[in-house]
Amino acid sequence: MAIDLNSDLGEGFGPWPMGDDAAMLQIVTSANIACGGHASDPQTMYRTLALAAAHGVTVGAHPGYNDREGFGRRVIPMAPDEIGRMVAAQIGALMGVAALVPVKVAYVKPHGALANLAAADTQVAQAIFDAIRAIDPDLAILAISGTQLEKVAKAGGAKVYSEIFADRGYLSSGQLVPRSHPKAMIHDAGEAADRLLAFLDCGLMPVIDGDPIKLDAHSICVHGDGPAAVAMAGEIRQRLSDAGRTPQPFIKI
Amino acid sequence: MAIDLNSDLGEGFGPWPMGDDAAMLQIVTSANIACGGHASDPQTMYRTLALAAAHGVTVGAHPGYNDREGFGRRVIPMAPDEIGRMVAAQIGALMGVAALVPVKVAYVKPHGALANLAAADTQVAQAIFDAIRAIDPDLAILAISGTQLEKVAKAGGAKVYSEIFADRGYLSSGQLVPRSHPKAMIHDAGEAADRLLAFLDCGLMPVIDGDPIKLDAHSICVHGDGPAAVAMAGEIRQRLSDAGRTPQPFIKI
Amino acid sequence: MAIDLNSDLGEGFGPWPMGDDAAMLQIVTSANIACGGHASDPQTMYRTLALAAAHGVTVGAHPGYNDREGFGRRVIPMAPDEIGRMVAAQIGALMGVAALVPVKVAYVKPHGALANLAAADTQVAQAIFDAIRAIDPDLAILAISGTQLEKVAKAGGAKVYSEIFADRGYLSSGQLVPRSHPKAMIHDAGEAADRLLAFLDCGLMPVIDGDPIKLDAHSICVHGDGPAAVAMAGEIRQRLSDAGRTPQPFIKI
Amino acid sequence: MAIDLNSDLGEGFGPWPMGDDAAMLQIVTSANIACGGHASDPQTMYRTLALAAAHGVTVGAHPGYNDREGFGRRVIPMAPDEIGRMVAAQIGALMGVAALVPVKVAYVKPHGALANLAAADTQVAQAIFDAIRAIDPDLAILAISGTQLEKVAKAGGAKVYSEIFADRGYLSSGQLVPRSHPKAMIHDAGEAADRLLAFLDCGLMPVIDGDPIKLDAHSICVHGDGPAAVAMAGEIRQRLSDAGRTPQPFIKI
Repeated sequence: MAIDLNSDLGEGFGPWPMGDDAAMLQIVTSANIACGGHASDPQTMYRTLALAAAHGVTVGAHPGYNDREGFGRRVIPMAPDEIGRMVAAQIGALMGVAALVPVKVAYVKPHGALANLAAADTQVAQAIFDAIRAIDPDLAILAISGTQLEKVAKAGGAKVYSEIFADRGYLSSGQLVPRSHPKAMIHDAGEAADRLLAFLDCGLMPVIDGDPIKLDAHSICVHGDGPAAVAMAGEIRQRLSDAGRTPQPFIKI
Repeated sequence: MAIDLNSDLGEGFGPWPMGDDAAMLQIVTSANIACGGHASDPQTMYRTLALAAAHGVTVGAHPGYNDREGFGRRVIPMAPDEIGRMVAAQIGALMGVAALVPVKVAYVKPHGALANLAAADTQVAQAIFDAIRAIDPDLAILAISGTQLEKVAKAGGAKVYSEIFADRGYLSSGQLVPRSHPKAMIHDAGEAADRLLAFLDCGLMPVIDGDPIKLDAHSICVHGDGPAAVAMAGEIRQRLSDAGRTPQPFIKI
Repeated sequence: MAIDLNSDLGEGFGPWPMGDDAAMLQIVTSANIACGGHASDPQTMYRTLALAAAHGVTVGAHPGYNDREGFGRRVIPMAPDEIGRMVAAQIGALMGVAALVPVKVAYVKPHGALANLAAADTQVAQAIFDAIRAIDPDLAILAISGTQLEKVAKAGGAKVYSEIFADRGYLSSGQLVPRSHPKAMIHDAGEAADRLLAFLDCGLMPVIDGDPIKLDAHSICVHGDGPAAVAMAGEIRQRLSDAGRTPQPFIKI
Repeated sequence: MAIDLNSDLGEGFGPWPMGDDAAMLQIVTSANIACGGHASDPQTMYRTLALAAAHGVTVGAHPGYNDREGFGRRVIPMAPDEIGRMVAAQIGALMGVAALVPVKVAYVKPHGALANLAAADTQVAQAIFDAIRAIDPDLAILAISGTQLEKVAKAGGAKVYSEIFADRGYLSSGQLVPRSHPKAMIHDAGEAADRLLAFLDCGLMPVIDGDPIKLDAHSICVHGDGPAAVAMAGEIRQRLSDAGRTPQPFIKI
């Protein structure tokens, strides 16, 4: 009946915040927390982890390329085993800081260009999965359904949860509508909530180019940066709750 | 009978090596490995950890200030709890990469200006110790006898090992001869080995300003950067072995 | 009759903005632009410089410690000549990017902990001044009256302009009221404007511990981060304009 | 009669040296000096520039991607105008530090992956050229003959000098033998010197797949890292001098 709401949080760096983490942590049930690669630093990690723990929000590691200037949105040429070591260092760093709160890091969701590569490239997906496995076999993985990362993780026996996006249009192939298309983004919170509720009722997601499709979803990803993001996430949560589907974390801690 | 030989290793960064880690890892029995703060990166960590594991060398985390340009030798103004989070992130990062080898991180030894501060400042020592404890209560600490870090760690119930320096002169107070003094450094490997063997035989360390003093030592610290360092470390190991004191790690893994 | 309004701008980094530079550049007449040390990067420099040029705002370099995590507010231990080289590289970087706009970098104002040190330490002030002079003898300096930097720069024959703070209380010594004191900050824009107008009329600045004092001022420094900052800066500009003192840059370009 | 010898120098970072700059600066006549992007920092820039000036070596800027971990050998996805701003900031930074020596930065030679891209991509070449031009129209460019950078720079009216490689094999197309080929590198200094002298005598470069080809060359690039590099560079200089072709900088300062 219930589904999880996740968001990328803790993506500030030093003196620079990003988004309103305090507001988002009252809305979401799982927080993907930056690990010092594309964003964050030990102090930002601690503040975000402590705030998540105070709100009972489940926390996951959100590793990305070591590229703050590009916010992890650029592919940095690296061999798969180099990526595995980078991811291992980032997850380890977050777990080290999490031990101070203390709070358990329950899952991993890759960020940005690294996530895109892990979705498409089996070797990269395997390297990331191997790193996660080596660190803690109990770590779950939050992935997009149909990606290489999901396949590799399932084949490796990991707990894998899948996510859908609250504000992105879908194609009948199951892929997201490209950002260049006018229907790529859903800007209206009410429309987004309607669509999610319909999906949760019947398991079928409307698409822009055909009949609704079956999608696998344990979690809804909502954006965390900007006041509009907080308002949309809040309305989605409210609508889910009003419909008797108060969000619940996919992993309870 | 036997004592440990430790050295700071894995202190390269990206394309830049520092010292001859491969040679040193054939000499020492414990390696203090940089964690991406004052030096190193995930790839350098992995190479160093894998090489240490291949040689059966015990590995420890060697956290320092996040200051590569200053190589961790400058005090960066930080509150004790900020230091604790920085140290936790670095130890965690090294443990994350170590899980890929796999090899166990057995102990922690702070680096440079952070080590000096942890030796003198109880709050900083406590913050570092708390971070270590939170991450893994089994992590041992390698400290200099008489420092605040040693006191705090012993009071907290940690396994604490103490080190002496192969190439530094001592004062009757137990402190090191200041670097400005002509007898601060022992440059001759034979002289260094003679002194260490005499110390191991009777537990008394010669000092430059009085009678030999009692010092606590589970490990001898040798420098790892430069060909002269390798030669001195090698000769010290040989002389210890010849005297029936083949170095042994203070923690066997 | 007229005075300059200056603010620290271009202090974002990569994906992270700081303050509302676009709004501030419609208010101030001089912009102190971060140079990639405590904040900024080549893209942020370019955007800020281009926007300043479009608004006819005079631009200055705002160098600080190479310490983004600490936003240049921590003293990083460095020798004076090391500071001079760091400052030279930062001013040069900003001038390199400014050449692309193109816009002339007209002056230098140090940032944060570096500014505080340059105010108090003659050697540091001299090193910074020497760097500025070596790069371009025409570069002016914006300093606080009475500081070592002002003295050194005047002794060296530089054009030196002095600033007062719109929102900080003063002591009869001419120094700022320490931040721990309740009267350190002036939070009300009207009160700040009243005080500035009174000062501009008679050249005497009210202080919290005695009679108004004579202060030297070519520019008023207003803060640039946060919506409240924009509102206060806007009101001060309006009040100055209403009083026939529409702000003018201290260097016209 | 005479030709220039150039090498990439000043490519250390913080505590990490790279190669033996002091030895190389006694051999080469032009030094391509890293600008804080793929390597170096203000202190390293200063030391290298001062040493070059002391040896009468002409200095050029050697900008590369802001990617120390990858040493500028990885393509970081950036738009051409972003590349232009990055290059402008780096050249400016080097010029700022050079003003302290003082020494004139006489030319620019891009590094690594950025150089490869500027050789092949007209837009990137144009962006780099525009940045150089905007900073100082007198800055020359050192490029490989036949590249987009050379074409763009010549079309823009810049002084362009071309280089050949002392230790790389050539194809009849004028391109370098790919590194995967056994004849990619010339490891023997005598063989390298023989080939260079023959080329200087007749203007024809031997290739591995046909008759010698005509190449344009104002400078010979020798590698600067490692003791073997110093020996090879030294022997090439000696052989050139013995043949009455003592190296001379392509730009005299």
